[in-house]
Amino acid sequence: MQSDNHRQHISGQFNAELEAVRNHLLEMGGRVEAAVARAVETLLTRDSGEAEAVIAADEEVNAMEVRIDEECSRILARRQPAASDLRLVIAVAKVTTDLERVGDEATKIARQAITLSEQAPARSGSPEVRRIGKHVGAMLRSALDAFARQDVAMAVNVVVDDEGVDSEYHSAMRSLVTFMMEDPRNIGPILNELWALRALERIGDHAANIAEQVIYLARGLDVRHMEPAELLAYMQAEAEEPSPGNVTP
Amino acid sequence: MQSDNHRQHISGQFNAELEAVRNHLLEMGGRVEAAVARAVETLLTRDSGEAEAVIAADEEVNAMEVRIDEECSRILARRQPAASDLRLVIAVAKVTTDLERVGDEATKIARQAITLSEQAPARSGSPEVRRIGKHVGAMLRSALDAFARQDVAMAVNVVVDDEGVDSEYHSAMRSLVTFMMEDPRNIGPILNELWALRALERIGDHAANIAEQVIYLARGLDVRHMEPAELLAYMQAEAEEPSPGNVTP
Repeated sequence: MQSDNHRQHISGQFNAELEAVRNHLLEMGGRVEAAVARAVETLLTRDSGEAEAVIAADEEVNAMEVRIDEECSRILARRQPAASDLRLVIAVAKVTTDLERVGDEATKIARQAITLSEQAPARSGSPEVRRIGKHVGAMLRSALDAFARQDVAMAVNVVVDDEGVDSEYHSAMRSLVTFMMEDPRNIGPILNELWALRALERIGDHAANIAEQVIYLARGLDVRHMEPAELLAYMQAEAEEPSPGNVTP
Repeated sequence: MQSDNHRQHISGQFNAELEAVRNHLLEMGGRVEAAVARAVETLLTRDSGEAEAVIAADEEVNAMEVRIDEECSRILARRQPAASDLRLVIAVAKVTTDLERVGDEATKIARQAITLSEQAPARSGSPEVRRIGKHVGAMLRSALDAFARQDVAMAVNVVVDDEGVDSEYHSAMRSLVTFMMEDPRNIGPILNELWALRALERIGDHAANIAEQVIYLARGLDVRHMEPAELLAYMQAEAEEPSPGNVTP
């Protein structure tokens, strides 16, 4: 038989472990966020030394993913969490995969920066890269903030925002294709920018995935395959219900 | 206190649940495999009706992902699995994410087929699409077979094979860029093929991710960030050890 003291001790340890894995995830998120910002910067400055540093730093992000997954497995095996604790562990395991892939996309952007730095300075797509880079950087930050605070309304905004990134991306694509057609000598460097833009667009998708996990975590609701309009309608209906689970805008 | 009968009954149910979630995953895998093959075919035939059907069929794949994740959560909450059972549930949850994304890539390929079907028939990149499509299709099948049989040697081959896809992809890219430069009127349609090729290359990455989960499942070893050469050396060392965990080639 366990004494009350002993039980409290165990539950204190358990909470500390949950808190730790959550913090490790947010730490990984901070690293990845910085990697994206640095990668976008190298694309604008074509600083290949800095781009190499971004690529090298991704090793640590990969190691963090492995450690966080191990923590999740250990908690599942030893603590057998239930209800919201279990949802937290599952959400952490899903988010860590998305963060690792964001890290990969940042290295892809840095690689394009290296290739571009070796080419003759051609017409630069910097305005598109700068704008979309800023946009997805903000989405990623919001998704991580929403995770930290379990802020559902903020998470919903991130999911909806991803549609904006997609349309910015398609319009940037169209103007870059026009530049290619105008002067075929631009094809090489512009393709490098297109790949970088596509990586940014993927980062937006991953930010939206992270936000969806926040909604799962806070509401137990899997919204991954809802259309943004459907999700907004759902949140609207929830906000109108006079329940304690209210989301204030 | 539970009787032996009761305990056996519970453990029988538990095994049935594990078997069920594993089968549902393999069923989802079969669907996704078929979607990739169909999508590649539409790119070659430019059959936009069939491409629309591929896109519509992805809804069911998405629904399967949600159901399988629910099954995993339920097993974790009710059965509190340990050791290899826990690894199975974690691996299933990771693989389902990869399969869902392969489904997304298949719809992207089908979308390119629709765009191409609307354009004037230009120079076709079919040989590259056909070859790489066949290659990643075979990788995906092997990854799923390796999962079904927990065949580590087969899984290692898939991981190593992904390097081959990457180099085929880069060489295809180079020749398509040359075609673009030769005649700027080709830029539009060739870009569509490039996007489709990139989707195929991502499918290869996901197949490799699935294979890595097979190794985790069978060996409890996280090989996600090992270089293929490192992984081969590890497997070689393991094969030379006269242990019951031998991998025969």
